[in-house]
Amino acid sequence: MDTMVTYRYYRQASRITIFAHIFGVIAMILMLVWLLHYREGVDLDSYDPDKIFNVHPLLMFLGVIFLSGEALMAYKTVRGERQVQKSVHFLLHLAAIILGIVGLHATFKYHDRRNLRDMYSFHSWIGIGTFCLYILQWIIGLCMYMLPYTRIETRSVNLPWHISGGRAIFYMTIVAALTGLMQKSTLMQLPFLYGESLLINFLAIFILLFGVTVDISVVLARYA
Amino acid sequence: MDTMVTYRYYRQASRITIFAHIFGVIAMILMLVWLLHYREGVDLDSYDPDKIFNVHPLLMFLGVIFLSGEALMAYKTVRGERQVQKSVHFLLHLAAIILGIVGLHATFKYHDRRNLRDMYSFHSWIGIGTFCLYILQWIIGLCMYMLPYTRIETRSVNLPWHISGGRAIFYMTIVAALTGLMQKSTLMQLPFLYGESLLINFLAIFILLFGVTVDISVVLARYA
Repeated sequence: MDTMVTYRYYRQASRITIFAHIFGVIAMILMLVWLLHYREGVDLDSYDPDKIFNVHPLLMFLGVIFLSGEALMAYKTVRGERQVQKSVHFLLHLAAIILGIVGLHATFKYHDRRNLRDMYSFHSWIGIGTFCLYILQWIIGLCMYMLPYTRIETRSVNLPWHISGGRAIFYMTIVAALTGLMQKSTLMQLPFLYGESLLINFLAIFILLFGVTVDISVVLARYA
Repeated sequence: MDTMVTYRYYRQASRITIFAHIFGVIAMILMLVWLLHYREGVDLDSYDPDKIFNVHPLLMFLGVIFLSGEALMAYKTVRGERQVQKSVHFLLHLAAIILGIVGLHATFKYHDRRNLRDMYSFHSWIGIGTFCLYILQWIIGLCMYMLPYTRIETRSVNLPWHISGGRAIFYMTIVAALTGLMQKSTLMQLPFLYGESLLINFLAIFILLFGVTVDISVVLARYA
């Protein structure tokens, strides 16, 4: 395809990032309203096990979904040299991993307080598996693209794998989040489609919309 | 990138389709074992509402996930001319839509029998929304790529959108399936991680692995 067409897709992809930011911010707001208004609030050191649990959805979404989505879009949204974009991409993922570790700790601490079994549902299996792959992908990315001694050809030959693999892991985080939210909302047995249950449904929809728009903005520009 | 590298990614992508077939078939077998051995079996015209419900996961998975995944991979797996590959891609999606309609009908019929509310959870919202997008994408694909009167340039300019959008919808079907399975398995409150609950967890993992491998096989070859 010629340069005009390539430019068109790049512009379309950049426009989609705007929608992604909006969907991500709305999801973040809905998450906070849910946890702070309808639930007990968020506190990792609380005596109330529910406040400890609530750290889990908040930090997993903020870190492994929102910041990691922003990391995926950094090559389009950060104005600056490629090296700056790369550093933002890398550091956002690092921040996501740190938040993710605290978020995972919260759910184990909650299970411990309530004497619940760990790693029972497939939400936990997918969640842990995805987080391990996320860290692995970050370490491989560090060695391959941040450290100076990797050959340029090795980098470029492995780039399609880095991008396809990274996107797959990003989608897996969306799956993990929504299965977790589904599990939680089913356990709560909210009686009416009103207030909290309506809010949770919209939260799920906006998390999904964030995932889809981030992904399309990344992929669309590369097809060209 | 040069032709050697392009060929390398195409070969890698083709190899991944083999894993996708295997994961898809394993998921299908686990689904059948679950519904026929652990559950009540499958019958749309039964007096037992549970047998009616079981048509839903079976047909949604078989149609909108398995057949549609195979449709996505048809350009790599079907040996033949491009026109044959296109027709297989198109017809598999048509079969998926027909199965999906029957599968959706089953869940409404089940709700009706049990006097349960329709469209309550976000699984149902995501499911219905995704299925509508799926049909829309199929109709646009029909007009754009199957009917003879669309200009070649229009086709090729819109191809990145057709592929990115199609892949996003495919991932949404995976999200819909796994949130549904999570809802069902949470409602069943299986007491031990043994037998049925273990089988459901593996079923979820293999559906996810099918989704990821189908997606990577489609995308990887196109980056080159």
